[in-house]
Amino acid sequence: MAIEAVVFDAYGTLYDVQSVSAVTEQEFPGHGDIITQVWRIKQLEYTWLRSQMNSYRSFWEVSRESLAFTLDAVGLPYDNAAFERIMDKYLHLDPYPEAIPALEALKGRRRAILSNGNQQMLDALVANTGLADHLEAVISVEDAGVFKPNPRAYDLVGTGLDLSPNKVLFVSSNSFDATAAKNYGFRVAWIERVTAAALRGEVRSAGTVGPATMFKILRMREEKFDLPPDHYLTSLADLAPILAG
Amino acid sequence: MAIEAVVFDAYGTLYDVQSVSAVTEQEFPGHGDIITQVWRIKQLEYTWLRSQMNSYRSFWEVSRESLAFTLDAVGLPYDNAAFERIMDKYLHLDPYPEAIPALEALKGRRRAILSNGNQQMLDALVANTGLADHLEAVISVEDAGVFKPNPRAYDLVGTGLDLSPNKVLFVSSNSFDATAAKNYGFRVAWIERVTAAALRGEVRSAGTVGPATMFKILRMREEKFDLPPDHYLTSLADLAPILAG
Repeated sequence: MAIEAVVFDAYGTLYDVQSVSAVTEQEFPGHGDIITQVWRIKQLEYTWLRSQMNSYRSFWEVSRESLAFTLDAVGLPYDNAAFERIMDKYLHLDPYPEAIPALEALKGRRRAILSNGNQQMLDALVANTGLADHLEAVISVEDAGVFKPNPRAYDLVGTGLDLSPNKVLFVSSNSFDATAAKNYGFRVAWIERVTAAALRGEVRSAGTVGPATMFKILRMREEKFDLPPDHYLTSLADLAPILAG
Repeated sequence: MAIEAVVFDAYGTLYDVQSVSAVTEQEFPGHGDIITQVWRIKQLEYTWLRSQMNSYRSFWEVSRESLAFTLDAVGLPYDNAAFERIMDKYLHLDPYPEAIPALEALKGRRRAILSNGNQQMLDALVANTGLADHLEAVISVEDAGVFKPNPRAYDLVGTGLDLSPNKVLFVSSNSFDATAAKNYGFRVAWIERVTAAALRGEVRSAGTVGPATMFKILRMREEKFDLPPDHYLTSLADLAPILAG
């Protein structure tokens, strides 16, 4: 079955969620790393909890709740201005350096985003970072009222692009997302940004496993669900050769 | 409305999930803490993901999948015997020292467990640790085919004990569980095993925030869902006075 559209996850896949660390470190010197990692871990936890509790709120709100949780749990008092400066980074996340060239290399193919982000924050992000021109559609889970990995979130790709799942190549570096997308019926390319060997080395060389390494362990290795991706990529730059071949 | 039954979460509330660290450290000297923390974090993540993916597996299987994930992600080769020795600890977890006295102090009241564990592993655990005699019922989410915080998991309390939710005091130290139980309609006592001040001190004194502190940050502070518990407890020993008062 030929691939008719390439659909990308946004946060962590096209955009480096770790790029918030510049702002978290600036606002809370010495605590940027712990804030960055705990925030991202809780942000996804909150999407999963809210989906199951049937109490959807927008990803913008979930991101605020998880940031507030993080600052309180780490024990950092904050004022509104600092909080808003950190949140604003979610509208200006750094694309991975290869993101725009990789999208350009797929010119002529249908290209879209499916993201947990709500429409407003996604539209601002792709406009602010130059990705908008390279995408046919920016699909938010907002219309489903649930987050990934709920199948109703993935359904929006089929309805939005009028395609059956097996004609979609779904690209994500979030391992839970790649796993669930495979379970759903998409063709899947998982971006393995941290290899097993690199992570093992990082753990071995650390006296204490710190937050950034903990994040990689928790969220950047393949899940154990017997749902391997169709393609293992090292970066977005691997996509064009795979689709050509 | 009078409380007619006290229903306990098991793992982390009556039983110390950190007690697996004796076995993980024995099997993998120097890595007991990282295994213990990553395993517990992923174990719950996997319950949340499987509930949303409509692909329930028993908690025993989920615990095995998350342990396998952990050992691979941390980069530790293992043999079956070591793996099984670690898993076996889930049938012999240490109850918190105050667990049996607290259950005894509630004698005369209806007391039960509602847990993510499947029936077989829960029955083995309460039998092996002397808690079985203090409980009217050990309710597994197994019959619902989903895990907490899905409301269908909490429904089993009402059907199992023939009680409406507002006559149930649900006791958990897992903050997501306390939050979801409150959302569901139970009266809720959350056990705050780590205070904000203690955790702040632990973060401040650490050169690098290690796995055990990371776990406390991620999972042992109150969630930001605007669903505070009815009671904040410091330990299970606080229950009897609250119910008497």
